[in-house]
Amino acid sequence: MMASPLSGRELQALDGFLATRSYLCGARPGRLDGEARARVPAAALTDEVPHLRRWFGHLSSWLPAELTAPPPDGLTLERALSAGREEARQQLDGELQRLAALRARLCSGDASDGDVSGASNTGKQRHESSRSAGAGGKLILKTAKGTRDFQPAQMALRERVFASIVETFKRHGAETIDTPVFELREVLTGKYGEDSKLIYDLKDQGGEILSLRYDLTVPFARYVAMNKISSIKRYQIAKVYRRDQPSQARGRYREFYQCDFDIAGSYDPMVPDAECVRIVSEILESLQLGTFVVKVNHRQILDGLFEVCGVPPDQFRSICSAVDKLDKSPWEEVKREMVEEKHLAPEVADRIGHYVKFSGGPELVDTLLKDAALAANKNVSAGLEAMRAFLGYCALYGVGGRVSFDLSLARGLDYYTGVIYEAVLEGGDVGSIAGGGRYDGLVGMFDPKGRSVPCVGVSIGIERLFAIMEARADKADQKVRTTETEVYVCSAQKGLMNERMKLLTTLWDANVKAEQSYKKNPKLLQQLQYCEDHGVPFAVILGESELQRGVVKLRHVATREETEVQRDQLVEVLRAKLAALG
Amino acid sequence: MMASPLSGRELQALDGFLATRSYLCGARPGRLDGEARARVPAAALTDEVPHLRRWFGHLSSWLPAELTAPPPDGLTLERALSAGREEARQQLDGELQRLAALRARLCSGDASDGDVSGASNTGKQRHESSRSAGAGGKLILKTAKGTRDFQPAQMALRERVFASIVETFKRHGAETIDTPVFELREVLTGKYGEDSKLIYDLKDQGGEILSLRYDLTVPFARYVAMNKISSIKRYQIAKVYRRDQPSQARGRYREFYQCDFDIAGSYDPMVPDAECVRIVSEILESLQLGTFVVKVNHRQILDGLFEVCGVPPDQFRSICSAVDKLDKSPWEEVKREMVEEKHLAPEVADRIGHYVKFSGGPELVDTLLKDAALAANKNVSAGLEAMRAFLGYCALYGVGGRVSFDLSLARGLDYYTGVIYEAVLEGGDVGSIAGGGRYDGLVGMFDPKGRSVPCVGVSIGIERLFAIMEARADKADQKVRTTETEVYVCSAQKGLMNERMKLLTTLWDANVKAEQSYKKNPKLLQQLQYCEDHGVPFAVILGESELQRGVVKLRHVATREETEVQRDQLVEVLRAKLAALG
Repeated sequence: MMASPLSGRELQALDGFLATRSYLCGARPGRLDGEARARVPAAALTDEVPHLRRWFGHLSSWLPAELTAPPPDGLTLERALSAGREEARQQLDGELQRLAALRARLCSGDASDGDVSGASNTGKQRHESSRSAGAGGKLILKTAKGTRDFQPAQMALRERVFASIVETFKRHGAETIDTPVFELREVLTGKYGEDSKLIYDLKDQGGEILSLRYDLTVPFARYVAMNKISSIKRYQIAKVYRRDQPSQARGRYREFYQCDFDIAGSYDPMVPDAECVRIVSEILESLQLGTFVVKVNHRQILDGLFEVCGVPPDQFRSICSAVDKLDKSPWEEVKREMVEEKHLAPEVADRIGHYVKFSGGPELVDTLLKDAALAANKNVSAGLEAMRAFLGYCALYGVGGRVSFDLSLARGLDYYTGVIYEAVLEGGDVGSIAGGGRYDGLVGMFDPKGRSVPCVGVSIGIERLFAIMEARADKADQKVRTTETEVYVCSAQKGLMNERMKLLTTLWDANVKAEQSYKKNPKLLQQLQYCEDHGVPFAVILGESELQRGVVKLRHVATREETEVQRDQLVEVLRAKLAALG
Repeated sequence: MMASPLSGRELQALDGFLATRSYLCGARPGRLDGEARARVPAAALTDEVPHLRRWFGHLSSWLPAELTAPPPDGLTLERALSAGREEARQQLDGELQRLAALRARLCSGDASDGDVSGASNTGKQRHESSRSAGAGGKLILKTAKGTRDFQPAQMALRERVFASIVETFKRHGAETIDTPVFELREVLTGKYGEDSKLIYDLKDQGGEILSLRYDLTVPFARYVAMNKISSIKRYQIAKVYRRDQPSQARGRYREFYQCDFDIAGSYDPMVPDAECVRIVSEILESLQLGTFVVKVNHRQILDGLFEVCGVPPDQFRSICSAVDKLDKSPWEEVKREMVEEKHLAPEVADRIGHYVKFSGGPELVDTLLKDAALAANKNVSAGLEAMRAFLGYCALYGVGGRVSFDLSLARGLDYYTGVIYEAVLEGGDVGSIAGGGRYDGLVGMFDPKGRSVPCVGVSIGIERLFAIMEARADKADQKVRTTETEVYVCSAQKGLMNERMKLLTTLWDANVKAEQSYKKNPKLLQQLQYCEDHGVPFAVILGESELQRGVVKLRHVATREETEVQRDQLVEVLRAKLAALG
């Protein structure tokens, strides 16, 4: 049976019902949501029905098969519409009355103060929904869309990877800073071009207008300007927020870690830039992810190349962002975007298409300089000389073989001004796993006097790295230890908990990582099972006879070998055995 | 000159102006804001002028002396009012027209679909402010109210403290998890009592209704229920968000770290509870903050005591929260709150006042049991027996001397069900530096079948600890190293940058933490000065003569002692010297 579309009036009523609810069925969508959705024409999702539009858009991330939960307490679509219509009408009446009163006062020329509280009383007549959040009091058991919890095993892997990355940053003399998770909205405004629509805003609850950070680079630039810093080499590992369409398969989330390293300061050209590439290489090598290549290019070369090809100057950034798609789309599609969407002349696009095919090593600099049109362009020639120095430094830093000078690399963000780079794993389809470049103008956007601090930096695509490593660990069926417990204190018989506690106290005092069962009288087998399940290397076993003789049994869990140890020597013996395990 | 109060009409116009602006003067408040504020009567801040109210409330955190910035571009209050009036009128007219059309359709009984787009067109007539954020394009150089950046020196201290705390958690076999920074709002609803008003909400941008987490306990309970976990011992260190009145002096921020340890699972009574107290003690001892005491009490004892004193059962939680203020306020004030605000009979309050004076060690259990009224109450006697076991375990864990059984300890949060505790530094006025207790009902609030997982946990007041430690470091004028660089590669003359780069590559390859100047030809003195300023222990100095002989000069920065080392032995020699430094 084909479901009939809802009328405009019904849609409005549905909007009223959804004004105070996430879903028709409560906190999670259910069958009724699916049925209602089938009756909402997409063309009806206008500004007039914002709650309906939110619900509809949000529902589209659920598969029909997931929409099976029954509606709460005999709710039907008809009842929802009827309740929603009444709620919407009350809301509208209250609003109309209130606004009319406000307008009357605003335009009356009345200058008395007395009616302020009167107007306020009108305001109090507004219909206030007394319904508590979550229709039907249904329990919520999910994280926000595009976010996830991290289980202990995931955290253990993450901490290991972070430690290794931080070690690399510190090997290069970096400090770390931290910035708040939200910024004044104005700090983020005008920094991300089209992507600004993905910024999470906070509700205006009577204070400043705030947004969650979108990356770590803009807050870093704000930090440098605000603290009048002239040079800093810093790393920062923190979460950022984007209201993007999440995709678990592609490792794309709405809350994810960024892992940034930046060098700010006025230095000799390309020296910090080449170190960034060295750092990316060290990190990717240390994580043993396989062969990778760092594609590099220079914004000045791209700009010059666009000039040579005949791109109008005001289209440089927009054409740049089209070129940026070449790693995912074939040239034909990128050309179509240039010509059809961005109205570039086809022959101009073809000229660009000719150049972006070039990639290679330092010799490419000379090859390109032999092209008379390119060599005659000041931007191109200056950019190529800069690239020559950069590639030379990369070679000195032992990463020349990793680097590919690639004219098709463009990078999406507007703020780059010099070298840009992007690391990709070979033979994979995970996309770039690190990227960055020089951005000399960003700090100046925050400085009251426009004082600029040149910056170059790199961002490690840590979530993609995790996804690769988790998949590998899964495949190899590797079990990650999530605790570091060195010894488990067991009792062999009942009534010994106090003795276990005394021994634990001795062990903790001696800085030994030790646990026990939280049960008064656990079974010995269960205690030993716990050790095997959790990879605890040693167990100490207490029994009446051992207690009387002032000894304990020390068991090596893996081999099940047991030795008797004097209690006053336990810590020492344990340390030696742990050291022997490595 | 006394400034005349603005009329209702003027207030409305000012509200219109502030609808799209943080302050009159732009992104930071200035003189004009101060002048306008003086003319706004507090009584006028009603629901009718939400933007004005936001601005006013927010402005109150600025001192008059701070409001000195001149208004942008000749803006005066009159101009702002006039512009605001026009903007407000346009906005109102658009809204009125739109709502009237909506109401007409909602109540017309019209069932055709065609007018949906028509209504949408009406909607498009709404006045859209085309003004970009931030009046006058003024630059913003501040973090959001109540938040702050952390400088490298602060971060270095924090990382050391976190490492030490995590070490303690791991000594007790804890795993770690992570949860998203925001939750569905419904997850937080009804968990925090009166404090719910301090929750940060996210703007509805067409998706789920979200709020920033207020603590780590509620998300942890949601995690346990959602993942059907029956037992876990976990720690989590993460930022939480509260729209509280910030106070730098009292170390109170709107974004701050919490550092939580919790044990979830059905175990024998008081065993995990006592371990939490042991953990608090280990942490506070390891940080060497001075003498501290852990006050403990039991919600069941408090409830029974309230019964005995004659408090109506529905007032237990509210009287509990009054008792909780005894650490900050004298009894008289707490009594006044009980009697005047909470309408408790004065003689009932006095009976409570008699009991909350008691504190002591395990002997207090027996003292209280000698009170016939108390001993006859089931809650009190059961609670006291539980307390006896708890105090016994604390003694076995070597922290009996730290613990004070204190009937005045109540803790503010509703969800505690058993033992509660709070650690305070002696002789300080920093308030509690750690606290927690048992909450057996929280997980059940999330489980669809109400299945409960008993929990007990502790939260370390890490921001207060940092404040104490930072103040101490400042006082002692201690300089914290913010980098770990082991050696700085210098050149003694011009033109040696490439040689420095080659040597750096060797050092990095050997996992030595090494830096150089980013200048091509830095002065030797400046390079050595950098080492002294940043605490870099060794410098390697390259010169033509050393290069020819295949050696380098190795300088110990502190003693300025220099030795010549063969290049191929440099890493080895350096490692030995670093190890000798410790």
